[in-house]
Amino acid sequence: MNKNTKVNAAILIIGNEILSGRTQDTNTGTIALWLNSIGVKVQEVRVIADIESKIIATVNQLRKANEYIFTTGGIGPTHDDITAKSISKAFNLGYEIHKEAFKILEAYYKPGEFNEGRQKMVWMPKDAKLILNPTSGAPGFSVENVFCLPGVPSILKSMLGGLTNKIIGGEPILSHTISLRTVESEIAKSLNNVQNNNKDVEIGSYPFFQAGKLGVSIVMRSEDQLKLNQCGSQILEFVNKKKIEVVDR
Amino acid sequence: MNKNTKVNAAILIIGNEILSGRTQDTNTGTIALWLNSIGVKVQEVRVIADIESKIIATVNQLRKANEYIFTTGGIGPTHDDITAKSISKAFNLGYEIHKEAFKILEAYYKPGEFNEGRQKMVWMPKDAKLILNPTSGAPGFSVENVFCLPGVPSILKSMLGGLTNKIIGGEPILSHTISLRTVESEIAKSLNNVQNNNKDVEIGSYPFFQAGKLGVSIVMRSEDQLKLNQCGSQILEFVNKKKIEVVDR
Repeated sequence: MNKNTKVNAAILIIGNEILSGRTQDTNTGTIALWLNSIGVKVQEVRVIADIESKIIATVNQLRKANEYIFTTGGIGPTHDDITAKSISKAFNLGYEIHKEAFKILEAYYKPGEFNEGRQKMVWMPKDAKLILNPTSGAPGFSVENVFCLPGVPSILKSMLGGLTNKIIGGEPILSHTISLRTVESEIAKSLNNVQNNNKDVEIGSYPFFQAGKLGVSIVMRSEDQLKLNQCGSQILEFVNKKKIEVVDR
Repeated sequence: MNKNTKVNAAILIIGNEILSGRTQDTNTGTIALWLNSIGVKVQEVRVIADIESKIIATVNQLRKANEYIFTTGGIGPTHDDITAKSISKAFNLGYEIHKEAFKILEAYYKPGEFNEGRQKMVWMPKDAKLILNPTSGAPGFSVENVFCLPGVPSILKSMLGGLTNKIIGGEPILSHTISLRTVESEIAKSLNNVQNNNKDVEIGSYPFFQAGKLGVSIVMRSEDQLKLNQCGSQILEFVNKKKIEVVDR
């Protein structure tokens, strides 16, 4: 794959607890920041319920539209953990005991503790590749371009390191932020001009409140450091002209 | 609409800053909890980039599959705020100055401060209904079943109260949580039996770490308090039999 190709990914969060508002998803941010660092851009995130037909349809739609899909949630031992079975069906693969995963968990637990509930976690799509779990033993898995991770944030986080060399990214996406003591409407026109002069840089404008004062962070993103610098200079030019204070943030 | 009908909604988060991992979305949780309280169930969440064609396609898909859509983000004064224009196109409506919104902002700002940047915020789909903003003046808007809210969490939160009587929900979704000092694999089989005996109750199982100890929260959700109680009793039955400690959480 050409290193300059833009590589896209989608994140699929599987879990009723996010949809109900009970649990705050943080996995999206964790995965997105990690992917940025290896040159993969998250194009879309979806959150769906623990419903088999919905998982199958969504995985099949997303895996065709993106280079990579990362799912989170639904790979534990309880009845509501249906990701592995659903992925098997999405790919028309058998859903069976993964021998290597079985060995890992058999060795991980004390004798007698590898019970029926835990054994559910080694049922996977046939010939799935394992994603090792340094925190709690039970591996995630991948099938083609679909990578299935657990929902518990600390466990998920610990598994990304082992995945990095399995993902072929493009150029890392660089970002540069300039934070200003102003409001968006004061800079909207000038910023629009800069955006028009820098089509290859994605410029976002985000209001913030800090120590009781309003401000705006301007975030520039590009694979090209030079273009990022040029864009930043043009922003600082109008900022100086308007006598707007640049703030640390 | 029959009060017993299940009413579904989708949330559409519009913003590159969420996809890049720079900003942690919290609006999903805010909207979902509010919707639960008025009997509307969030069926799906999507996060997409500030790309007009993507917004149009996603809105048109979601608004047909759900009773309500709530969008967040992209209604401010800067170049990357393209939600209002995109919604106009999705509905084939003109994109024009909303007279009532203009009056509101003209009165809100001090003389001379209602500048070109701020005036962008009164451009909306033709005949859009306003969603009042008690925090910072600039209203959101709705077209048919699509409700467009800002991305800044504190502002969004302050606007939901005024929306409540515009949403016709079903029975409120009740939930009951039992937290246990155990691990999922110990209760997986018994919990599965309870789920099979209580098809109308959605049972989720969520591991947690608290004060260095592992635990599992079992969350039951239903519109029917009686069914929720019955389900809870059956869970406590196996919990007592297994001598598992119930914990506060």
